[in-house]
Amino acid sequence: MKAVVLLSGGLDSATVLAIAKREGRSCCALSFAYGQRHGIELAAAQRVAQSIGVDEHVVFPMDLRLFGGSALTAEIDVPKDVAGAAGIPVTYVPARNTIFLSLALGYAETREAQEIWIGVNAVDFSGYPDCRPEFLDAFQRVIVTGTRSGVEHGEPRIIAPLVTMSKADIIRRGTSLGVDYSLTHSCYDPDVRGLACGHCDSCILRKRGFEEAGVADPTRYLSS
Amino acid sequence: MKAVVLLSGGLDSATVLAIAKREGRSCCALSFAYGQRHGIELAAAQRVAQSIGVDEHVVFPMDLRLFGGSALTAEIDVPKDVAGAAGIPVTYVPARNTIFLSLALGYAETREAQEIWIGVNAVDFSGYPDCRPEFLDAFQRVIVTGTRSGVEHGEPRIIAPLVTMSKADIIRRGTSLGVDYSLTHSCYDPDVRGLACGHCDSCILRKRGFEEAGVADPTRYLSS
Repeated sequence: MKAVVLLSGGLDSATVLAIAKREGRSCCALSFAYGQRHGIELAAAQRVAQSIGVDEHVVFPMDLRLFGGSALTAEIDVPKDVAGAAGIPVTYVPARNTIFLSLALGYAETREAQEIWIGVNAVDFSGYPDCRPEFLDAFQRVIVTGTRSGVEHGEPRIIAPLVTMSKADIIRRGTSLGVDYSLTHSCYDPDVRGLACGHCDSCILRKRGFEEAGVADPTRYLSS
Repeated sequence: MKAVVLLSGGLDSATVLAIAKREGRSCCALSFAYGQRHGIELAAAQRVAQSIGVDEHVVFPMDLRLFGGSALTAEIDVPKDVAGAAGIPVTYVPARNTIFLSLALGYAETREAQEIWIGVNAVDFSGYPDCRPEFLDAFQRVIVTGTRSGVEHGEPRIIAPLVTMSKADIIRRGTSLGVDYSLTHSCYDPDVRGLACGHCDSCILRKRGFEEAGVADPTRYLSS
């Protein structure tokens, strides 16, 4: 069975790719060059794709800076040491997973892939609305009403194997599958060498996950 | 009230923009350079935006040819004189309106627009599944579950004023609003000068619409 796998270069999507491979899928990886402040995560996506193995890897260029308005695409300071605060954080990118899933859908139809795998997680997450099961269910309905493959075959199906897992469970699962997490990148605000800041939402969730999983954290953090 | 209006340069989206303006909306027009075989429709979109008047017009570059597989983006022959045939035609572009709406959604959130206007039509249309009301309803559900503005305010709302109108009704309505249809472009297979072929699905629906509306057709067709 063929699957499109959304691959950001982070810990979660690397784990998803490893699970899809273990489940016997032929994987087409899809990453986005969407105007991130750093290309570090795309380099990580390429390392992960090569390490785990994919049939092809498309890096789709798309400049969301044309719309402006987010810490991940514009020049807003990334908040530090506030993981777990209530509400949707300023690092929210408008409609990001909707945009990513819609392009994954176009790619999946073109390649006749029956599944789209995505590493969203609604447990140890930053409060983004487009990481929740109700969003994925709504998008599945878009697929079955709005695409040829959806109308004719009810496909592609969205597979989100991490959605109800804790970060520690994700790390344990990936470790058991041989994922080399030193290849992945999570930090929203790395230095020029790619070292992780250790204090943004994404770093805090990642560090805590390794601690709780009892797995050595291979991430290179700034010493501060 | 602020609205993002999807503007292809065709007859339908020009009419939608005119209706939105008449309804008092401040309009942000959005067009896509998505690897069409001809830039003629983007030139038409720019003429229409200027003629009817918008607050801003973003042309978003995005190369769907990276995924391949459609007559409108790849080198497949456009079928002629088969308008009204059963099924989804080969000119179907995988997930096109899902992709366009998702990017319009990102743009609308960034601009704090309360509405997204789209010129889909499920009467005189080519059989694309992503032109039907059930698809728009599903996408609205994606908005209210998956975006900050959707979760917090139930916005943006998708407005599709043409969805149940005939092509003749659309042309009558636009004509009453002063739309200059000579600025618009519908043909899937124009010649190098931009003359319409007169035989693709889009040309046939357009020609028939002007005839039924009793409005002179300003389109310049190839004489054959």
